[in-house]
Amino acid sequence: MTVKPLGNRVLVRAIEEEERRTPGGIVLPEAVKEEKAVRGEVKALGTAEKFDMSVGDKVLISAYAGTEIRIGEEKHLLVKTTDVLAVIEE
Amino acid sequence: MTVKPLGNRVLVRAIEEEERRTPGGIVLPEAVKEEKAVRGEVKALGTAEKFDMSVGDKVLISAYAGTEIRIGEEKHLLVKTTDVLAVIEE
Amino acid sequence: MTVKPLGNRVLVRAIEEEERRTPGGIVLPEAVKEEKAVRGEVKALGTAEKFDMSVGDKVLISAYAGTEIRIGEEKHLLVKTTDVLAVIEE
Amino acid sequence: MTVKPLGNRVLVRAIEEEERRTPGGIVLPEAVKEEKAVRGEVKALGTAEKFDMSVGDKVLISAYAGTEIRIGEEKHLLVKTTDVLAVIEE
Amino acid sequence: MTVKPLGNRVLVRAIEEEERRTPGGIVLPEAVKEEKAVRGEVKALGTAEKFDMSVGDKVLISAYAGTEIRIGEEKHLLVKTTDVLAVIEE
Amino acid sequence: MTVKPLGNRVLVRAIEEEERRTPGGIVLPEAVKEEKAVRGEVKALGTAEKFDMSVGDKVLISAYAGTEIRIGEEKHLLVKTTDVLAVIEE
Amino acid sequence: MTVKPLGNRVLVRAIEEEERRTPGGIVLPEAVKEEKAVRGEVKALGTAEKFDMSVGDKVLISAYAGTEIRIGEEKHLLVKTTDVLAVIEE
Repeated sequence: MTVKPLGNRVLVRAIEEEERRTPGGIVLPEAVKEEKAVRGEVKALGTAEKFDMSVGDKVLISAYAGTEIRIGEEKHLLVKTTDVLAVIEE
Repeated sequence: MTVKPLGNRVLVRAIEEEERRTPGGIVLPEAVKEEKAVRGEVKALGTAEKFDMSVGDKVLISAYAGTEIRIGEEKHLLVKTTDVLAVIEE
Repeated sequence: MTVKPLGNRVLVRAIEEEERRTPGGIVLPEAVKEEKAVRGEVKALGTAEKFDMSVGDKVLISAYAGTEIRIGEEKHLLVKTTDVLAVIEE
Repeated sequence: MTVKPLGNRVLVRAIEEEERRTPGGIVLPEAVKEEKAVRGEVKALGTAEKFDMSVGDKVLISAYAGTEIRIGEEKHLLVKTTDVLAVIEE
Repeated sequence: MTVKPLGNRVLVRAIEEEERRTPGGIVLPEAVKEEKAVRGEVKALGTAEKFDMSVGDKVLISAYAGTEIRIGEEKHLLVKTTDVLAVIEE
Repeated sequence: MTVKPLGNRVLVRAIEEEERRTPGGIVLPEAVKEEKAVRGEVKALGTAEKFDMSVGDKVLISAYAGTEIRIGEEKHLLVKTTDVLAVIEE
Repeated sequence: MTVKPLGNRVLVRAIEEEERRTPGGIVLPEAVKEEKAVRGEVKALGTAEKFDMSVGDKVLISAYAGTEIRIGEEKHLLVKTTDVLAVIEE
């Protein structure tokens, strides 16, 4: 089963906090109330012509942007590319 | 009797929660207050020139987007295509 | 006496609930607080160049859209075509 | 003394309720709190190039649209043509 | 000392109520809470290419539009031409 | 050390009230709650192609517009040119 | 590990207050509640075609603009270039 985003949206798998801290490097703010960004992995691109990112990219997304869905047990986000702040490379 | 959506709207039959859980795979959040997306099936396309989806497609829609109507006993939504987040393929 | 809508507006005669239920088929939600759409019949088109509907069409309109007026005893709405959701055919 | 509206505005003399009921035909809602439209007569057109109405036309205007002024004892409105809903012909 | 408005702004000297009533003709609503328009005299035009009014014109302005300044003892307004409703000719 | 504004912004040194009253002529409203305009002197232009004002001009700015910074002891504002209301010449 | 901003965003390392005061010259308001600008150093430019600033530039940013992230121990901001107010040169 696949979810194909429409328009300028991308499907992003949210990367949970435990997972985020393991590789070191960038760490998002811990306090829930200060958390302004969410980390994720791009799983699918929408139907728009051009995207600044590719499937597999690790990205930072504005917190509260997009719509949360679950695929199996994993939290995902359907989010407009304009709400994707940056690509992270390790 | 048919409902023909106007402009960039589509008519979507809402897929109820019981129905949604049967095929496994994607399951939307259970708690009502967290539910940000609604699942449906496209029944008719509007009068705009181009659509990213076809009749029969299963789709995810922003919760609270569109206007709810009932055809017979079934809940439907008249919704702008820009509020359709993704097509689901099984 | 005639009312000629201006711009992209149409004049729609509201179809009351008794009248709506007679022909069977589509029935809008009964509870007032859930009613998000109003059913009507197009009586006149505005001065814009092109309309997606014709005089005599039965339509669904966003509730609270448009401006209510009375012609004789009958409730009518002056409403922008962009607030007309769909044409209904029986 | 004359008032010359600017841009896409028109000057409209408000037609009071007594006056409105005399000719029969269209009657606007009586209850003040339900009154969504105001009836008037176009007295002057603004400086824009094109208008959908002429001086002397009877029109319906969105209630609360425009700016109220008095010329002598009579209430008038300076209102954008986009807030004029319809022309009434008797 | 001169004040030269920028862009599509004009400098308008506010005409006080005593002054407004003298010449008869148009009288703005007396009650402060109902006052939706302010009368003034255009003193200077901004740097935009084209204006619908000239220096010396008497105008009606949306109440609360613009920014109030004082030149000497007199109240003036720096106001966008789009907030000037009409020119008054006597 | 220099501050170079970006885009259509200008850097303006705020002229304090004591300084404003000395030369006579224009005086802004005294009561703090009525103060709708701030007087200043343009110190630097941004990177946009064209400006309606020059370095050294005395200007009036919408109160609360722009962002306050201090250079040494002096209050300055980084403000978009669209929020500069007028140039003052003495 | 690198963070690559998308679109017209830049990555800025926030310059803490201790650091800001050392070189003298510009000092931002001390009181937290009055602080309308944040000082930083541009670390990376986004994917847009043109930027008014370069990597290494010291900049002033609208307070509350952008999204805060931490790289190691250091606070950074992902901010749209339109929210960067000025470049500072020493």
